[in-house]
Amino acid sequence: MIGDQFLLLPGPTPLPERVVRAMSRQMVNHRGSEFKQILISVTEGIKKVYRTQNQVLIYPASGTGALEAAVVNFISPGDKILAISIGVFGDRFAKIAGEFGAQVEKIDFPWGQCADPQVIKDRIAQDKKNEIKAVLVTHNETSTGVYNDIKAIREALGEHPALIMVDAVSGLATVDLKMDEWHLDVVVSGSQKAFMIPPGLSFLAFNERALKVHNKCKNPRYYWDVTSGLKYLEKGQNPYTPAISLYFGLEEALNMMLEEGLERILNRHRNYRDMVREAVKAMGLELLAPDHCASCALTSVRAPEGIGANKIRQYIREDFNIILAGGQQTLDDVIFRIGHLGYVRELDLFSVLAALELALLKAGYQMELGSGVKRAQEYLFNSYCK
Amino acid sequence: MIGDQFLLLPGPTPLPERVVRAMSRQMVNHRGSEFKQILISVTEGIKKVYRTQNQVLIYPASGTGALEAAVVNFISPGDKILAISIGVFGDRFAKIAGEFGAQVEKIDFPWGQCADPQVIKDRIAQDKKNEIKAVLVTHNETSTGVYNDIKAIREALGEHPALIMVDAVSGLATVDLKMDEWHLDVVVSGSQKAFMIPPGLSFLAFNERALKVHNKCKNPRYYWDVTSGLKYLEKGQNPYTPAISLYFGLEEALNMMLEEGLERILNRHRNYRDMVREAVKAMGLELLAPDHCASCALTSVRAPEGIGANKIRQYIREDFNIILAGGQQTLDDVIFRIGHLGYVRELDLFSVLAALELALLKAGYQMELGSGVKRAQEYLFNSYCK
Repeated sequence: MIGDQFLLLPGPTPLPERVVRAMSRQMVNHRGSEFKQILISVTEGIKKVYRTQNQVLIYPASGTGALEAAVVNFISPGDKILAISIGVFGDRFAKIAGEFGAQVEKIDFPWGQCADPQVIKDRIAQDKKNEIKAVLVTHNETSTGVYNDIKAIREALGEHPALIMVDAVSGLATVDLKMDEWHLDVVVSGSQKAFMIPPGLSFLAFNERALKVHNKCKNPRYYWDVTSGLKYLEKGQNPYTPAISLYFGLEEALNMMLEEGLERILNRHRNYRDMVREAVKAMGLELLAPDHCASCALTSVRAPEGIGANKIRQYIREDFNIILAGGQQTLDDVIFRIGHLGYVRELDLFSVLAALELALLKAGYQMELGSGVKRAQEYLFNSYCK
Repeated sequence: MIGDQFLLLPGPTPLPERVVRAMSRQMVNHRGSEFKQILISVTEGIKKVYRTQNQVLIYPASGTGALEAAVVNFISPGDKILAISIGVFGDRFAKIAGEFGAQVEKIDFPWGQCADPQVIKDRIAQDKKNEIKAVLVTHNETSTGVYNDIKAIREALGEHPALIMVDAVSGLATVDLKMDEWHLDVVVSGSQKAFMIPPGLSFLAFNERALKVHNKCKNPRYYWDVTSGLKYLEKGQNPYTPAISLYFGLEEALNMMLEEGLERILNRHRNYRDMVREAVKAMGLELLAPDHCASCALTSVRAPEGIGANKIRQYIREDFNIILAGGQQTLDDVIFRIGHLGYVRELDLFSVLAALELALLKAGYQMELGSGVKRAQEYLFNSYCK
């Protein structure tokens, strides 16, 4: 079998050649004018993707690092926190808050479903004394392929003063999110998803309301400290050595994203979702997420009765070097996940769907070869060619 | 002026072409077998550089991140800590410990000097009740260009049960360090120094004694948690997404380092130091560090009377695109620092010294052109050619 691994994971995603080339160069001085220009430029670019005029800091860290940054900068030990979880990453955000001393009240929705804003509204309505200091919520839950209606959840909080803190690591630029228009206080994202660069950078955006909370926040911190980050950002620097090569990639990726335009990027991801979902249904398979909250970043597919999802993943890897993600925890061997975010094309999805059909047949599943691919073609024909 | 910035900083250092090429590739699945092999291979390679059989974890973070990891995993709030500082990075390690609730007693030595092991021995001797839980010390102080005699400092602790925690970010593989033989408990390093790859990875090595302390350690942590890191390392994974592209570079850089051999690498850095120091003295300039503790990673040079160090840095940057570091805090404009660690050759230092002479003359300093370069040539002739 020739060719590199073809990653259809929900991150890291394939890299555009332009990004690989942009990263293939010598370092620059991270305290010098060239890096300063890059830092200013990428910070402005990220703000456009976040649709925010607020502050954004870039950490040399994974997305999980920026989740920890959100917790230690905006939550104090003893604070009462409402954590909305619809899967592994919702659980993780809640766990980090708990580790740093928050009193975490968790509202869990079944895996494969999105959060119901009405449930949150009811809970918030009971909090007459405004004891809840923050609401944690996942934008796009990577473990299940479900997105939350962040706008509706923000509206459910009404005038309650709790900060809303959003994990948009895999969601940003794949599912709509308007930080300022929706009045989101803290929004976290990462580099290896829609930003199409390798993992190792994460982003923390926060508004003035969050900054006021930060100024009184009592959690210990050094690496993640927002005050220090802002102070150095004014000088065009990071408090400690930044991950320079990833900035080169980010600068080029943002050029690509802004050339394409955010609306088109979101549209493209919506098309991928609908195309993959229709194709998979045409193969006779079941989807984990219902239509109204199905992620545009990835699609979770239930393996057919009697066939392990990991067997299908094994065949498609061995025969075609395509890497699909498995299910996590209780969904292990039950679902497989097709990532379709970042640098992915319709063309790629045709080949992946074709390979998936072959892997299914090899695993003993009965279906008509080509039926899924044909349905994807029809979808595109109807949306693009008419 | 043609050509890229030529970095003679004490990190990031120039990248070998082999490393740049190794990093110029598509991502792999960070939960798959290919990444597992890389992770196992680089972890073993790093252990060889550390000269340790102990555990090493790799963080997607700067060196400062691994300093924070050392603090939150091995120091509990309220612990009494002895922090030995000889400059900016010693201060930083102490500050992080203080931020996370340690009672920090700091012993400061003058900037430009190394720590005196006898002072530490005397202080430890007074601690009859073993109240001191850890001693923090910098291996190579990047802000001044001075290294500490870690072996002697470890011996000064004798049988006292305090952990010794060493910041070897810029020191490892430029100045000798034998983690196991010298009984060092925790040693931190980073990717952009002797490892010759871009910033964004840092390393935390710790022994069984440290692990016992960790198991009772009460500081909050998630991102830096050693228990979780070790659990995932057994599976060949990182708890959260690792900075994959930097691992590709690290794997190649370790190949290069092990091909060259650690003794030769250390020897090379010693030669750079002596060659640069002799040349700079021949130019009539003063060195900040005395001979007995002068860093092999960088050389701090006092600017001539009446000429600002930053003027010299400006000229060598404008005329030759060579980036030298300035002094920090009280040493700003007083010294400039020539980095000579990682992927640097004697050949490079000839050209840098020649350019430095021109920058000095342009800044109004009187000296015979070529005197420094000639002295460096003589040094090499005597050490290599006889």
